[in-house]
Amino acid sequence: MASTPLFESVALIGLGLIGSSLARVMKREGLSGEIVGCAQSQATRDKAMELGFVDRVETDVGKAAESADLVVICTPLGTYRALGEEIAPRLKRGAILSDVGSVKEVVLREIGPLVKKGAHFVPAHPVAGTEHSGPEAGLDTLFEERWCVLTPAKGTSKQAVERVSELWRRAGSKIEIMDAAHHDKIMAITSHLPHLIAYTIVGTATDLEESARAEVIKFSASGFRDFTRIAASDPVMWRDIFLNNQEAVLEMLGRFSEDLTALQRAIRWKDEEKLQDLFTRTRAIRRSIIDAKQA
Amino acid sequence: MASTPLFESVALIGLGLIGSSLARVMKREGLSGEIVGCAQSQATRDKAMELGFVDRVETDVGKAAESADLVVICTPLGTYRALGEEIAPRLKRGAILSDVGSVKEVVLREIGPLVKKGAHFVPAHPVAGTEHSGPEAGLDTLFEERWCVLTPAKGTSKQAVERVSELWRRAGSKIEIMDAAHHDKIMAITSHLPHLIAYTIVGTATDLEESARAEVIKFSASGFRDFTRIAASDPVMWRDIFLNNQEAVLEMLGRFSEDLTALQRAIRWKDEEKLQDLFTRTRAIRRSIIDAKQA
Repeated sequence: MASTPLFESVALIGLGLIGSSLARVMKREGLSGEIVGCAQSQATRDKAMELGFVDRVETDVGKAAESADLVVICTPLGTYRALGEEIAPRLKRGAILSDVGSVKEVVLREIGPLVKKGAHFVPAHPVAGTEHSGPEAGLDTLFEERWCVLTPAKGTSKQAVERVSELWRRAGSKIEIMDAAHHDKIMAITSHLPHLIAYTIVGTATDLEESARAEVIKFSASGFRDFTRIAASDPVMWRDIFLNNQEAVLEMLGRFSEDLTALQRAIRWKDEEKLQDLFTRTRAIRRSIIDAKQA
Repeated sequence: MASTPLFESVALIGLGLIGSSLARVMKREGLSGEIVGCAQSQATRDKAMELGFVDRVETDVGKAAESADLVVICTPLGTYRALGEEIAPRLKRGAILSDVGSVKEVVLREIGPLVKKGAHFVPAHPVAGTEHSGPEAGLDTLFEERWCVLTPAKGTSKQAVERVSELWRRAGSKIEIMDAAHHDKIMAITSHLPHLIAYTIVGTATDLEESARAEVIKFSASGFRDFTRIAASDPVMWRDIFLNNQEAVLEMLGRFSEDLTALQRAIRWKDEEKLQDLFTRTRAIRRSIIDAKQA
């Protein structure tokens, strides 16, 4: 209990990797008077109580929302619209609705109009995660030194934005306020496309003949392994990310495919210089990431 | 000095990441009476003597080879043919020539015929590495618990194959004997294609407008970062791998591109089921890698 609570009651809708990590750090830091957890399955609600990162659980989303001064949606994007319709009308005056989704423009467009005057909508995206999922996978250190991007619509209460910022700051994150569409473009290249490619190559390897597949696993340490970790991320969450950031992902995928085709051609025609030039350029990018202390 | 030397004198041609790692573990384990290091640049030779992982250095490859009972080529594949022509005629009776290259069929085809009767050729590929290069980057633990694949031609002296196997075993590796063409196919999917893709996506990101590029680095922790590590590997070494495993790489790249196009279509047409199916399948592969203790 390091600090005075920022909120009287926080309702977390969804208690998977991100929701349960947020609950854990809020508990550790004493950030809310009460933490209410909402989950669809009895098993998850029981696990949450057993692990003790929530004070109580609710089955009904609207009921969980109506007593909270902060509601955070921590479920896959595909559930947002229905949840928004249940939650928004039940928000208390002055309450804040937020989320942790990896795509932001669609969220702003679909949930934003549902939030009535007097309540606030502050979409957020903590850029953190692991390949594990579920309430047991959460870590109270997950957000430390990671970015949390907030994408409030123009005209959103500064005070509401600041309260959500402070929550994430106390969870250990660095805050960035960004335009939602811009966020989605940056994430398309830094996160969504890498995941899409990792899913694809692991799928390509899975389709090899049975005998080759065993050897792929055996010799995975030579590069492939890093892709399998990324491609082990939550399937439903990622399905929804691609469907909800369709435009930016397809745009980046188009650029990537062009570049890959050019490289394919360079290999076919043994264009030594082109290959070496690219490989030298990419090495420099790694250096920038190390310098930016993101490695 | 854990054991009796396996060789009286070993000549290492090339003292980069792999060559200097091999030298280090050979020194630590006392695997050779003498370790002779050969490197093109004065700076590398000086560094090798300063770091003490070789007993002496040679500038002339043929001279380094003629006193050794094992010569190991540890340079990029593009240098092999010229080196083979210098080394092979100078090999002592009963001496073994080996290498550490990531592609094996081309090596067998180009170097094999140069090795005269009485000497032996045992190509090897230690499946280990980091994104760093140069004599300072070597680690005496680099090969521990990693595979070393040997691809001797039919009819190669069993004793020679066993001596090279024992060297790598004492360096901590697990040994696999494999057909060279099969090795090249497996590596095309587990290592060469992942590197090619990583180089491509890092290149794609580098080509973004200046402002976006800074943000790509800032938010790299969301998936992109793992690719930059792979894409920071030695440019010349990788150029030569793609040029020398052209056929298998283009074949795997073809399969990957088809799969990526199918996924692109699934995103465009919002085919939820197809996306979720693939993402669920790939998660299982990760589980196999963890079970195989390669994670």
